Formats: sequence, structure tokens, C-alpha cells
Amino acid sequence: MFARSLRFVNLADQLRARPLMQHVMFYSSWPSSSSSSSSSQAEDAIGFIGLGQMGFHMAKHLCPKSQKPFVVYDMNQEAVSRFQSENSNVKSASSPADLASQTSVIVTALPESSHVKDVYLGKNGVIEGLHKNTLCIDSSTIDNSVSIDVSRQIISAGGRAVDAPISGGIMGAQAATLTFMVGCQSPADFERAKVFLDKMGKNVVSCGNLGAGQAAKICNNLLLAISMIGVSEAMNLGMRLGLDPAVLAAIFNNSSGRCWSSDTANPVPDVITSAPSSNEYNGGFKSRLMLKDLGLVSNAAKDTKTPLLLGALAENIYRLISSDSEMAEKDFSVIYKWLANK
Amino acid sequence: MFARSLRFVNLADQLRARPLMQHVMFYSSWPSSSSSSSSSQAEDAIGFIGLGQMGFHMAKHLCPKSQKPFVVYDMNQEAVSRFQSENSNVKSASSPADLASQTSVIVTALPESSHVKDVYLGKNGVIEGLHKNTLCIDSSTIDNSVSIDVSRQIISAGGRAVDAPISGGIMGAQAATLTFMVGCQSPADFERAKVFLDKMGKNVVSCGNLGAGQAAKICNNLLLAISMIGVSEAMNLGMRLGLDPAVLAAIFNNSSGRCWSSDTANPVPDVITSAPSSNEYNGGFKSRLMLKDLGLVSNAAKDTKTPLLLGALAENIYRLISSDSEMAEKDFSVIYKWLANK
Amino acid sequence: MFARSLRFVNLADQLRARPLMQHVMFYSSWPSSSSSSSSSQAEDAIGFIGLGQMGFHMAKHLCPKSQKPFVVYDMNQEAVSRFQSENSNVKSASSPADLASQTSVIVTALPESSHVKDVYLGKNGVIEGLHKNTLCIDSSTIDNSVSIDVSRQIISAGGRAVDAPISGGIMGAQAATLTFMVGCQSPADFERAKVFLDKMGKNVVSCGNLGAGQAAKICNNLLLAISMIGVSEAMNLGMRLGLDPAVLAAIFNNSSGRCWSSDTANPVPDVITSAPSSNEYNGGFKSRLMLKDLGLVSNAAKDTKTPLLLGALAENIYRLISSDSEMAEKDFSVIYKWLANK
Amino acid sequence: MFARSLRFVNLADQLRARPLMQHVMFYSSWPSSSSSSSSSQAEDAIGFIGLGQMGFHMAKHLCPKSQKPFVVYDMNQEAVSRFQSENSNVKSASSPADLASQTSVIVTALPESSHVKDVYLGKNGVIEGLHKNTLCIDSSTIDNSVSIDVSRQIISAGGRAVDAPISGGIMGAQAATLTFMVGCQSPADFERAKVFLDKMGKNVVSCGNLGAGQAAKICNNLLLAISMIGVSEAMNLGMRLGLDPAVLAAIFNNSSGRCWSSDTANPVPDVITSAPSSNEYNGGFKSRLMLKDLGLVSNAAKDTKTPLLLGALAENIYRLISSDSEMAEKDFSVIYKWLANK
Repeated sequence: MFARSLRFVNLADQLRARPLMQHVMFYSSWPSSSSSSSSSQAEDAIGFIGLGQMGFHMAKHLCPKSQKPFVVYDMNQEAVSRFQSENSNVKSASSPADLASQTSVIVTALPESSHVKDVYLGKNGVIEGLHKNTLCIDSSTIDNSVSIDVSRQIISAGGRAVDAPISGGIMGAQAATLTFMVGCQSPADFERAKVFLDKMGKNVVSCGNLGAGQAAKICNNLLLAISMIGVSEAMNLGMRLGLDPAVLAAIFNNSSGRCWSSDTANPVPDVITSAPSSNEYNGGFKSRLMLKDLGLVSNAAKDTKTPLLLGALAENIYRLISSDSEMAEKDFSVIYKWLANK
Repeated sequence: MFARSLRFVNLADQLRARPLMQHVMFYSSWPSSSSSSSSSQAEDAIGFIGLGQMGFHMAKHLCPKSQKPFVVYDMNQEAVSRFQSENSNVKSASSPADLASQTSVIVTALPESSHVKDVYLGKNGVIEGLHKNTLCIDSSTIDNSVSIDVSRQIISAGGRAVDAPISGGIMGAQAATLTFMVGCQSPADFERAKVFLDKMGKNVVSCGNLGAGQAAKICNNLLLAISMIGVSEAMNLGMRLGLDPAVLAAIFNNSSGRCWSSDTANPVPDVITSAPSSNEYNGGFKSRLMLKDLGLVSNAAKDTKTPLLLGALAENIYRLISSDSEMAEKDFSVIYKWLANK
Repeated sequence: MFARSLRFVNLADQLRARPLMQHVMFYSSWPSSSSSSSSSQAEDAIGFIGLGQMGFHMAKHLCPKSQKPFVVYDMNQEAVSRFQSENSNVKSASSPADLASQTSVIVTALPESSHVKDVYLGKNGVIEGLHKNTLCIDSSTIDNSVSIDVSRQIISAGGRAVDAPISGGIMGAQAATLTFMVGCQSPADFERAKVFLDKMGKNVVSCGNLGAGQAAKICNNLLLAISMIGVSEAMNLGMRLGLDPAVLAAIFNNSSGRCWSSDTANPVPDVITSAPSSNEYNGGFKSRLMLKDLGLVSNAAKDTKTPLLLGALAENIYRLISSDSEMAEKDFSVIYKWLANK
Repeated sequence: MFARSLRFVNLADQLRARPLMQHVMFYSSWPSSSSSSSSSQAEDAIGFIGLGQMGFHMAKHLCPKSQKPFVVYDMNQEAVSRFQSENSNVKSASSPADLASQTSVIVTALPESSHVKDVYLGKNGVIEGLHKNTLCIDSSTIDNSVSIDVSRQIISAGGRAVDAPISGGIMGAQAATLTFMVGCQSPADFERAKVFLDKMGKNVVSCGNLGAGQAAKICNNLLLAISMIGVSEAMNLGMRLGLDPAVLAAIFNNSSGRCWSSDTANPVPDVITSAPSSNEYNGGFKSRLMLKDLGLVSNAAKDTKTPLLLGALAENIYRLISSDSEMAEKDFSVIYKWLANK
């Protein structure tokens, strides 16, 4: 397959060379009749719910850069106090509803579907205090179906909703280099959200309608998990056949086996110096978080009756690995170590 | 995982920008004491065995470009006659042994392990006519263990052996743009073979010791099969969740899902215009040939006791697909069509 | 493995010969302090919710045999009218709450988790009309976690709860030969429920605490799906190696390959005359219902972090098969036909 | 599925009650014109090749019971001496050919395909000394295709051939309770072989033509491996859902999940007292031997283009387990322990 790969390299390189947004934006697919907020709208104040491992760092960027009144809420009062001690002029709300009553833009960063439902739709949830046209940006990675349902209820209640799950991890949150995959009903919603997302990340990708951000993220991570296991199996086989791992990786990377899991995050130690595998599988994307995303994948597959042969196996391999408490906390490329019995 | 992807892009791009050979050559790994042929050796005549779909085109390039006496052998007398009618001054041999007795370089291009064993080691096989130091270049894709065994017997008989399986397909053979993955005992053998391989292809990659060419090729194709099924599952899921396939592919291609099977040979029609999927899965690499290579993979995995979880499933998926005579002849990206039930 | 099989046959046959309940009952595992209803309680009236394909036939047995006032509810008014026309002295309720207010035993037979939640806990749900000590028997096959949650809320509201999913299919419902797998908090609950379940089936199996009925059913069906695919693969391989299918099945059935999917429901036509495979895969247990149960399995596996390697693949194989509308309606042994490409 | 199971119990029990041979013999499938040896033939002397872990015990039964001159051969001279010291009047041969020249019945018990090819067809192999009509009974478990090929060459050389792989393990060999699965060309060959097999085992099953014994054995073990993993997954899931393992096993064993791997060799300790799992997974059928048989399965599947989805995964799971040197030596039900991370 080498030659075909080479034949197409020019095209692929051209695609890679273009800035991302150019080819992933497609306003034309939005329903033209959709009512939407205006991106030129002046926002009153910003609310942030969820000062956890990701949210805390995100809010620390958003708060000073947005130069607006800033209101936070978290069930963990200690996190709120710490955030207030590190950032001046931050108000805390007594509930999501209370926060909503004081803000025109709300960002949420929560661990799981159930938390998102509670915070928005539960008792004293955002919806109870929501102003007309308030923009709700949920950056949590949750079930596609839950995300769409919550967004629709926000919109029914007069607000605007955007799903904007993140990739980039805690380091990306600290450095404000996150990527946001955005789903929303209109270009205006996208532009309005982008103003705030730009302050916390460096790529804001428009993926389509409500839920499309969630969908894009989990599909990418499905492919990523499969590729990583595939690279691990192929590297392990090659090495047992006597190949030098660096040579084998170079062959993949210059032919049809080329992929991010080989050329950037190769799971064999010391093939790529900057990869987590070369740092005892520390840093990177933890196995248990990959497992969480694969759980969202299989929920979505079940909902849409989509068969996943390799994907289902990948989820269960990560479940097996994550039953070991140490491997659960390692970068997901640790699958190589497990497979090779090292 | 977007952000990490972007962080590493520079490194990865640098790797990509360098010419391939620079980072895949590693002469230092060859045993220095190995006896070997000299690359400056004057060759007497060239032999070519196997004028099939690939070999015929390869020989058509090698014969005029090498400007040496040229001897061919094929069990199919019609192929021999046709080759002689299209190329002047070509002799035909009565057997592999007869061909060996007249040549100092022999190239073989044969379908399966059993043919390679027969041609080299069988009755009236190459070994029976072999001169000291004759270079035997086997470009067939066969079992790694058979390849090593045949090469060792050639060397024991006084010859030199190189395994050089091909990627690039019939179109690559016609255009002399093939890639050869080479395994041999010394840099001198590699350089001596490269003189001839260069006339039939455009990349000649040194992979390591005897059998390393076979090993590299099958490991690449193992990863390729897994990636292609992974892309098919992820694209299918995303589309059922309402994503535009071009947008989803662009997201993969700019993040950690990036791979050749997405950015170059995407299995969803009309995402990549030049991909076989956009041409009704014609052209490209046939499912039944992918199945053949996955059979070599599982043989090698059995020999080396290497577990292949996704790989074993991939082989059997291609076996299932190839039981349909139409899909067997389509590009292996037809897996998407099968999965999506279209 | 033949000999070991034979060595154990006596033991296994003894186990088989004993009546089922003897070795599956184990009252000792129930918490002794659990409050519970008395099995000698005189019931006032019986309610039945869900007059669908299964429920209609079940209620038709329960109604006359119980000789108590009988109240039914179904969202489908036509089903209610039809039931009333076929059974005398049946009242219909205006809602689950209304039904609960008139009865001391309620049986529900509903398609999915969401319906069970709605009927018990939703607006005008059972809980709103529940009398103290009313026994709620849910015979639906639903998520183990939902079943436990609903049961606990019933108990908190003063009622008693039993999960009693069914096997046996529509024919079993018609003939009152169903098997019920029962989970509940005490022997008294079990005995109280058994009085009614006995009128609709012929086996009532105590599986453990709340949710245990659901758990037992889905674990059995997980194993069943895997066995059926396993038999299909092994029969297909044997036949392609030239074995007579009846001989091969007999060998399995007398050795360590012995299983229900081989000796009772063999997927190869004409090996077992009474199997669905011998009747064009009609009758039996539909592929799409097996898929539904495997969906409950994977939900439970996700909740409990249990890796399922073959099970996950089995679910996705049935999803792939069920995407063909014809195979979806065939007995799940149709997997053989699909695999063998017949 | 309970009810259907119960419906069919009578039929299945009847089948089980009949002696095995009645329903697995089917002489009618043999080619009537096949030349064959007579079962009433008077044998001159018996040869036995392969005094390994199995063969030594088998020969110890065959030698005294057959009351004929007895000749043995093994490459390991120590085994030969030990056999001669334990059995009187045993001659040793200097090669398989030498043994063949002195005998009219030869039994072989060898580890792998390559040994069988060598002993029969190699230098100084059986064929070189074979008398007309000598019966060669190979009890090794080897590749179906190799078995057929060797048998055909024996027949071409004037002998008769029978493949008769064994189940029952070392304990069965010691106790002469082995089961032999027999493939041969005619009833006469079967009857002639049965005279000798009966002295070493207690079941001699006619499976069909040449290779059918091998085919039957590996298909059974394919199904067995899948069932065992299936039981392990289902038991593990049930236990994590809170079920008592003995109750869960009893439910399986009385319904459609019933199988040998649940009712006889249940992989959860202390469910079946006599199972290897209750003895720290000692005794029984070692994981590495199951892996060997699954390797024969995948070779046969490759040869016949038979897709094995669960089977391929099962092979690789056993390969992964067997990479742990301790688990490799445990009964193959140790898969449960691995899956449950115990």
C-alpha cells in the first residue's frame, strides 16, 4: 500500500496545511429558519459551574480575560472558596438557578451525564433561573442523547444551548490550548460561544447541530482507541519477528499504517521521545478516561443500532485494563505493555 | 486529544519531511562479521521467475533498464512467449535451475509460500543451478518463516538472499513506482539489490535482517486493516448520529484519529475523491488480498506466540466479507459498506 | 475432554434429575431482619398493567384462575376493550395510580426500562395510588439497575416489590408454561408472588435479592448467545471439513462441547427436527429480542465494570444481523445461516 | 428460553441415554467401492511409536492386552529402556522403518504435525518399511490437512490409515478410559482399528472419512473454549450483580445456558466440587494445550475459508493467558480467574 499512500500525499498534505476551520465549518447545513441569538449581543455577566480538575483551570482563564462580572457555583464549597481566593471580584451563587438568574452566559464543566441533567434540569437547576436568550455552553463529555435532550429543554425555556466537549486534558486547560468540538443550532450561536471558548482554548471546531460536538468527540476517540490497540498489536508482532521498533514505526509512518497513535503517541517506549510511553506511560490520556468515552460510544451505538465489532472489543479491553488500579491511571497507550506482557 | 496532537505536529511533520531512507536505514544493526557480496560486482545476466500480474510488469521495466542479458521462467509458457514477443533478446529457461545456471541475479515474483519453496528448493529448483554469490531477490509476499528458511538455504548453497516484498499493486508495477521492503544480511546485499529494485520501484526501504521485509509488510497491513475497520465503524457511528461525513473526516484528520485510512483512503464514498470508495470501491487493494496478508499475519503471530485481539477479528471479518465473491474483488475499504448495510 | 465429561456425567445427571427449585432456593441469603409481607395474606384484588403480546396471554390465565376482582390498565384502549370482551367481570382503570388504589397485588408486563419507570414512578404512576403492603410483581425484562431502583422506591412508599422476568416466549405465555426468575427481599415475598406466578407459568425460580431475577435472566441469555454463535462456528467449520452435521452434533452432545444450543436448538437445519433451524428459523427466540437482552447485559457490565470479551462481540454480531429486517425476526440461531453465507 | 429448554428435555435425554455409537456411526457414508483391509485379519505384531506422556501409558495397556509381539520406537532411548524394563518381551526398533518392517499394526502418539510427517514420510520413516495392508493408527492431534495427506501417502504405499485423536488426558491414558475419534476410509478399517483402540480407551467414535477424527476433535474443542469463556463472562457478571455463584450455575444448568463448561467444569471455584477450578485449577486440560488445539482450529479455518469470530478471539485470549507461564499450566477454566482479576 506504500505507493498509493505516496500518490495521495500531496492531497493529504494540502488538507493538513489548511487551517482547520476552513474545511470543518459548514454553515450551510444549519437550518436557515432557526431562531438564534445574535453574536453581537452584549453579555451581562458570566457564570461558571463545575470547578473540578478541568473547570478550575478553564475558569481561571475565562474570568480575567472576559472582563465581565463572574459568578461561580460548585457543590464543593472548598473549590469555590479557593477559586475566589485566587481570583478577585468573583461572586458565588447558592445554586445553579441562582447563578442563572445573574448571568447571560453560562459555562458548565461536569463529569458525567447525570451531573449535567441535575445542574440544568434538576431542583434549583439552571432552567429555574434562566433568562431569555442566555447562552448555555456545556463543555462536559456526556451521552450524545442526554446532551441533545438537555439542550432542547434549555431552548424550550427560552435559552440558547451549545455542546462543546473538550480535548486536550488538564495540561491543555492550564495552558488554554484546549480544542472545543461544538454543536449548536446556528452560526450565530457558534460565533457567540466562540468568543468565550477562544479564551480557554485554541481550536474551536464547528461540528454541526445540537449534539454534534459530543458525537464528533466520541467518534474520534473510538477511532483513537482502535488505532492505539492496532499499533500496539502490530508493533508487538513486528518486534517479536525481530524488527527494530524505531524502524518499524518509521515504516508505518511513511506508508498506509500511518496514524497519530504511531507517529505521535507510539505506545512502545523510546520510539517517540515525547510520547507518554517514553515517560512510563505518565501524562497523556488516562486509560480510565478512555474507558469512560468508550462507554459513551457504546451507548450511542446502542441508541442508533450501529454495530461496532472492533469498537466493542476495544471498550472491553480498556475495561479489563482499568480493573488494574495502576494501569487505569496510566496513559491509554499502556495497552502495549499489557499485550506484550512486559 | 486534539491539543496533544497539535503539540506534536511539528515533530511529526519534521519526520514526514525527511526522506524516508534517512530514518529507516540502520546499518549498525547488521552483524559486522557477516560475509556478503560486494555491491560493485559486475553482474553477468539477470533472471526473472514469475511473469504473473505483478511480475510481468516488473520484468518489463527491469529488462530494458538493466541492459544485461535477460532470462525468464514461468510455468505458464504463454506468459513467457508473450514476454518474449514484447521484449527483444530475452531468453527463456527450461527450469529455475536452468535459469540459475545462466544468471548472477535472480528476481522472483510468486503468489504464495509453496511456490517460493518449489521454485527455489524443489526439483530443478534454483538451488540446483545456483552459482556462488548469485543474488536471489524474492519479491513475493509470503510467510516470514518460509522466507527466512528459503533464504538460509540459498546462502548455505553459496548464494546471497534478499526478501523484498512489494506494496503498490498492479498500477505501481506498471508505473515502476513500487515500494520494496527489504530484509537481508548486510548493507552490501542491500545496495546490490537496490540497483535492480530501483528500476522497478521508487522506494527501497531497508527493514533489517533476513525476513524483515516480510515482517514489516505484514505488520503494516495488520495495522492498516485494523485502522480501516476502525475508520469504518467511527464514520458509520458519526453519520448515524447526524454528522456530515466530510466534517467528521476532517475532524479525525486534524486530531488524534488521524490516519491514512481516514485522510487518504476514507471508506465513505465522496469524502476523498481519489479514494476507491468514491469509485464504487474499485482500484486499490482487494479484500481478498488483504485477507491473504492477514493470513500471513496470523501464521506469524502463531509462530511467535503473539496475541492479536483486534487483528484476529480483522482477519475473520475479511474472511467473512471475502466469502461474497463480489466484495472479495473490491477495495478493502468496502468493509464500510458491509458494516453500514448499504 | 471426552473422558472427563464421562467421568462427571453421573454427578451432572443427578443434578439434572432433581427438581429445579431444590438447588436454586437459598433462603439463607436473605437478610433476616428484612421487613416483609406475609405469604398468607388475603389479597383484595389483582391489577394487571400491560396487555401486550406477552401480558395479554398471561392476564388471560391469571384472571380466571385467581378468582379475585381483576383490574387492568394499558395505554392502548383497544387492548383493554378486547381483554374485557374476552374475560367477564374485568374492570379497567384510568391510570396506573387508579389501578393501584383498587388492588393489593399488581403484575406488570412492559417492553422496556422507560415504560417500567413511567408506570410505577411517573405522573399518575402506581406509587401515587399504592396501598401499604401491596405486592408489585414486574415481569418485564429491563435494566437490572432500573429494576432495583424502582423496587426500592415501591418499598419506600410502603409496598413490596418483586422482579420476575420471564422466559418461554409467547407460546409459553399462551400455554402458561413460562419460567419466572424471581428477585425479592424475603422468602415471604417470594411465596406471596409465587401464588400468582404459578398460575401463569410452570417454573418459579428464586434467584436472590431485588434485581436478582433480572440479573439471572440476562446472564443466562449472555451465555446462550455466546454458545449459539460458538455452535454455529464449530458446526460450520466441521461441515466445511467434510463432517456430517448430525454426526458432529452427536459428538458435541456426548462430550465437552455439549450444550443446549447444540443438543436442543442446533442451528444447522435438520440436525434437531424440533429446532427452529429445521423450520426456516421460525418460532423460537427472535434475533432482535436477543439483541435487546444483550443490550441489558452490556448496560449491566458497564455499571459493574465487568469485562465481556466474547459477550461484547456477540451483542454486536446480533446488532449486525438485526440490521437486516428479515433476520431480525428469525430465531437467533439464524446466526449460523449468516456465518455460513447460505 | 427456559420453557423451550424444558419442552425439549425429553428428546435430549433420550439421546443422552442411548449409547454413543448408535447415533454417531453411519457406515452408509463410506464409499462402497473403497478397497480396505479385513477386520478379521490375523495380525502378526504390533508397533508403537511415541512413548511420551500419553503414549507410554497407552502402550502399557496395549502391550499386555494384545498378546502379540510388541515393538516400540522413540527418539528418546531412555523412554524405550524404561518401557522395556516395565514390560517383558518388548523389542525396540532402530527406526520407524525398521519397526514397520516387523509389524502389521502401528500406533503413533506424537506431539505435533511435523513429528507425524517425519515419522511416517521422513528418512527411515514408516513408509520405507511398510508391508502391504499394514494398519497405521495415528492417535496424535495434528492439522487436519497434514493428517489427510499422511494417510493418503500411507494408502498409496499399500498400507491402511486411520486418524484417531484422543480426548481424556493423561489420567484417561493411565486408566484406559480414553475416547478416540476415528476417521478412516471404510467400516472394515474402523473395526480393525477398534480392536486395538478398545484396549486403550472406552469410547471409539466413528466420525467419517480420513481426517474426520481430527476434524471432530478440533471442532469440539473450539466449541469448548468458547463455552468456557462464555460461562466465565456470564458467571463473573452475575456475581458482580450480586448473585450467588451456585444459584447462578444452577439456573444455567436448568435452562438454555446449560453446557458442560457450566454443569461439569464450572470455572468458579467451589461451584462444582470435582471441577479443576475447585482444586486451584489443577488437573483437567491445560491452557497451553487448549491453545495448541485452537491453533489447529485456525489453520483448518484458514484452509477452508471459514470465518470464526468468537473462535479467533478465543484463540488469542488463550494465547494471552498462556504467555503467563503459570496460567499456561493450569486448567483452561483459569480464564475465569484472569477475567475476574482475582
